[in-house]
Amino acid sequence: MRSIFTSIIEGQIPSYKISEEASAIAFLDIFPLKEGHTLVVPKREIDHWSDLPSEEFAQLMQFAHTIGNAIKKAIPCERVGMAIAGFEIAHCHIHLIPVNNMHEMEFSNPKLQFTDEQFKAIAERIQQKLI
Amino acid sequence: MRSIFTSIIEGQIPSYKISEEASAIAFLDIFPLKEGHTLVVPKREIDHWSDLPSEEFAQLMQFAHTIGNAIKKAIPCERVGMAIAGFEIAHCHIHLIPVNNMHEMEFSNPKLQFTDEQFKAIAERIQQKLI
Repeated sequence: MRSIFTSIIEGQIPSYKISEEASAIAFLDIFPLKEGHTLVVPKREIDHWSDLPSEEFAQLMQFAHTIGNAIKKAIPCERVGMAIAGFEIAHCHIHLIPVNNMHEMEFSNPKLQFTDEQFKAIAERIQQKLI
Repeated sequence: MRSIFTSIIEGQIPSYKISEEASAIAFLDIFPLKEGHTLVVPKREIDHWSDLPSEEFAQLMQFAHTIGNAIKKAIPCERVGMAIAGFEIAHCHIHLIPVNNMHEMEFSNPKLQFTDEQFKAIAERIQQKLI
């Protein structure tokens, strides 16, 4: 079965896109733990991150590095946390979460809600810090 | 101030080492959330991961990819979770945690205790799966 991320990548499902390159895409998590919570996803539908070829994983992480830097500049936070878990969607995705303490990275925390306009504005703020 | 990880890298503090390469090291977390919980650390003492040069970060992640694969083969688990937070030690480190559900990745969970012999045996099991 195609993953929901593949549908986003192919444009059948809209997303608040931050950036895209040949083999990966970054967009806002619509169930964010924090304002600016972003997902970085390889276009190839691989479930577990360590099953991606090593070179492809490194390239994906370089892309995540660029996005992480932009988030850190755009969103007031102490650090940008990174997490890969993957129990809900079987398509590898990297969470980038601007956080001020360890507790804010816990996925059992309640998710924030934003309006369409707010999500758009957050995505734009991050995009403006991409170099 | 030198980080505790620099002391481990330089050998002043012992560790249950899994593997080492020119610019990074992997060793067991001695406050593990799960059996096989491993830290991957760049030898350069940089605090925030996105402050590492992009190429260096990619290289570090390729090393983590190798270690993650070995953990997945050595330790019974559904997935190997990855996390970077960094609120406790200001020297970039990647957590690799063999987990069976999302909850097991939460850092507020109680840490496991192992004897010296047990830690050594876990490190050896992972090392044997390195390719």
